[in-house]
Amino acid sequence: MQAEIITIGDEILIGQIVDTNSAFLGKEFNKFGISIYQITSVQDEKSHILKALKEAEENADIIIITGGLGPTKDDITKHTICEYFEDTLVEDKAVLTNVEQIFAKYNSAPLLEVNKQQALVPSKCKVLMNHNGTAPGMWLEKNGKVFVSLPGVPYEMKALITEQVIPKLRAQFKFPYIMHKTILTYGLGESALAERIETWENNLPNFIKLAYLPSLGRVRLRLSGKATDKSVVEKEILHQVDLLLTQIEDVFVGYEEDESIEAVIGKRLTEQGKTLAVAESCTGGRIAEAFTANAGSSAYFKGSVVTYATASKVKILNVSEEAIKKHSVVSKQVAEAMAKNVRTLFESDYAISTTGNAGPTKGDSEAEVGTVWIAIASKDQVYSEVFNFGDHREKVIGRATNKAFEMLQKYFLKK
Amino acid sequence: MQAEIITIGDEILIGQIVDTNSAFLGKEFNKFGISIYQITSVQDEKSHILKALKEAEENADIIIITGGLGPTKDDITKHTICEYFEDTLVEDKAVLTNVEQIFAKYNSAPLLEVNKQQALVPSKCKVLMNHNGTAPGMWLEKNGKVFVSLPGVPYEMKALITEQVIPKLRAQFKFPYIMHKTILTYGLGESALAERIETWENNLPNFIKLAYLPSLGRVRLRLSGKATDKSVVEKEILHQVDLLLTQIEDVFVGYEEDESIEAVIGKRLTEQGKTLAVAESCTGGRIAEAFTANAGSSAYFKGSVVTYATASKVKILNVSEEAIKKHSVVSKQVAEAMAKNVRTLFESDYAISTTGNAGPTKGDSEAEVGTVWIAIASKDQVYSEVFNFGDHREKVIGRATNKAFEMLQKYFLKK
Repeated sequence: MQAEIITIGDEILIGQIVDTNSAFLGKEFNKFGISIYQITSVQDEKSHILKALKEAEENADIIIITGGLGPTKDDITKHTICEYFEDTLVEDKAVLTNVEQIFAKYNSAPLLEVNKQQALVPSKCKVLMNHNGTAPGMWLEKNGKVFVSLPGVPYEMKALITEQVIPKLRAQFKFPYIMHKTILTYGLGESALAERIETWENNLPNFIKLAYLPSLGRVRLRLSGKATDKSVVEKEILHQVDLLLTQIEDVFVGYEEDESIEAVIGKRLTEQGKTLAVAESCTGGRIAEAFTANAGSSAYFKGSVVTYATASKVKILNVSEEAIKKHSVVSKQVAEAMAKNVRTLFESDYAISTTGNAGPTKGDSEAEVGTVWIAIASKDQVYSEVFNFGDHREKVIGRATNKAFEMLQKYFLKK
Repeated sequence: MQAEIITIGDEILIGQIVDTNSAFLGKEFNKFGISIYQITSVQDEKSHILKALKEAEENADIIIITGGLGPTKDDITKHTICEYFEDTLVEDKAVLTNVEQIFAKYNSAPLLEVNKQQALVPSKCKVLMNHNGTAPGMWLEKNGKVFVSLPGVPYEMKALITEQVIPKLRAQFKFPYIMHKTILTYGLGESALAERIETWENNLPNFIKLAYLPSLGRVRLRLSGKATDKSVVEKEILHQVDLLLTQIEDVFVGYEEDESIEAVIGKRLTEQGKTLAVAESCTGGRIAEAFTANAGSSAYFKGSVVTYATASKVKILNVSEEAIKKHSVVSKQVAEAMAKNVRTLFESDYAISTTGNAGPTKGDSEAEVGTVWIAIASKDQVYSEVFNFGDHREKVIGRATNKAFEMLQKYFLKK
């Protein structure tokens, strides 16, 4: 059984917004055994939407359509779907009530005629009530295939998928079992890793696929198995992982479940009752932001300082001026002092620090663009390493952030 | 003239990575007059890639293919394109040299046979040398249409597009002129805005399109004009913007050029020789990260503190314990004290602070989930406002961040 995603909206095609909805949908659908065959992004244009619907119907059993449901003239998804189903729009009383309630809660402005039109839906559709916005989700069926139209606003779409679409799909269809297991490695390039595990890879059974996902200094190995029998998939994947691990012990960091490494670290800190503080220079807040984006971070995340200017490293983090003068601001000594002192400042168990030059030009130090010192401190220990992450700002910040997570895990949190 | 993007890779379809490449391509191509007709994401599977290539060739004149060029077995793009062009792979000496150099620079491991195979390219292709990685870009032509295959790693792809693909396209084709003008508004919902400007919208000439882009508390209005004659488009767009502004003066924030609001703020601060510091609680580093993601931020960004724990607000930011006890940690008094004190701490001209509850549960204060106080301070002035951003963590952090940018612009940087 396969699904397709159609995202509708000029703003995606002109690059004004990044399509994060599709990644969410891909992840959620895979969890319960539906592969996404294709993602298609099309313009707010009737004939193009009709063509995409027709093609998706040929390829897939479930078609998820997001976007183009706003109250304004440029949004034409609802009318176009109505035409595709040779249907007419009718007012849904419950949706109208929902629109009125949402409006009363969040708007000072009066309810307008265009807002009321959000309550018009194709007569053949089942309404999926949107409690976070005025555009309802719509469930339609045709020749045994399911079409679901959802608003493009990410949190509205996500709530509808999780609370209504997936339960409804599970009730209606029988899905094969899909299992993914992602193994995080660092320190070995994609090709060297591939060469090392070649024999193992060649002997994988054909219902298990392997993918290499290199990203800013680490390589994730993703094993995906799919079959009707859950126990067969689970048993074989775990068996293959065991075989694999014996060959990559030296570069194995851990498993990445559904979560990012920072979420995994956060969980482990919470379990252990430990806390963390961060002092960032070149990463500019990215590390703190990654932790605090996760709910529950206040249990372990004490806080952070971004000491972007050299003077603030001295004033706030109490890094000695002599050390900066003698070793430069991008140095082992400064990184270690930052980690030790931010730990004391926030009274945390562990601390991370970064100091480096993300480019594109040299900053307060003479360090080459891309040079980053990272330090990790506990009460009694400090570890630091230096890296060169190349000369792209985005890449330097991203790789330094990932490396800091890995170092924390490697030195203090490894199971 | 239209283009299509094909992104190849299972990792996109299972949601393991978000496709940011397409947004970049959409933006860059629109700048010089090429619309993206469709974005199609397909699996690492030969027949599916061949089908996508054929369909794209029917719709578009320029087909950009990203991803699937790694050295490992799961990457099959190069072989599939070679088959589509009925071509054979040949070794390119210059690419081999590039692979060897990149390897020597970034890897301690020896060069493997699979890495050398990165130098194999279809005999009919023009190589676009990739100075940031081992997979070369490939330019192929068929029946007057251009196919460009690029690596999926964002910074490698971006450099190839900017430095090689776009200059080559401009030399080979004549493009219509496209102009976008995006107007940032806040404080009025999408539908109320649409009703207010309805007459103006209905009278737009047909070569100008209007789109409403609502996002976390603000609505952007995007005017897009396209014609062969540059002066006609420019004149008409500017004329229409003048007409529009008379009707939305009270909610107009500014123009959004190609840049994010934080980049615009950064530019203005740099021009004025002013500096900024940030004290974040519920936004957890997001504000600092947004500024420092831009090159040149060290000119105006002094630093930030994330005082996530209440104790650190007292210890590091010198917020009085009485004020916290009396008014709670999510209050006007605490927000204003944070802004004033972080300004003093970092010796900056301006400061931003946030304190609130991003949810999903109540934290150190009794404030409702979604409540956020934001304060903006200069040497002599402090402004603060309170908001309720609803009950989704992601949305609360995002809206609070946007609102902080807007308040800084509104109170201190408005032209």
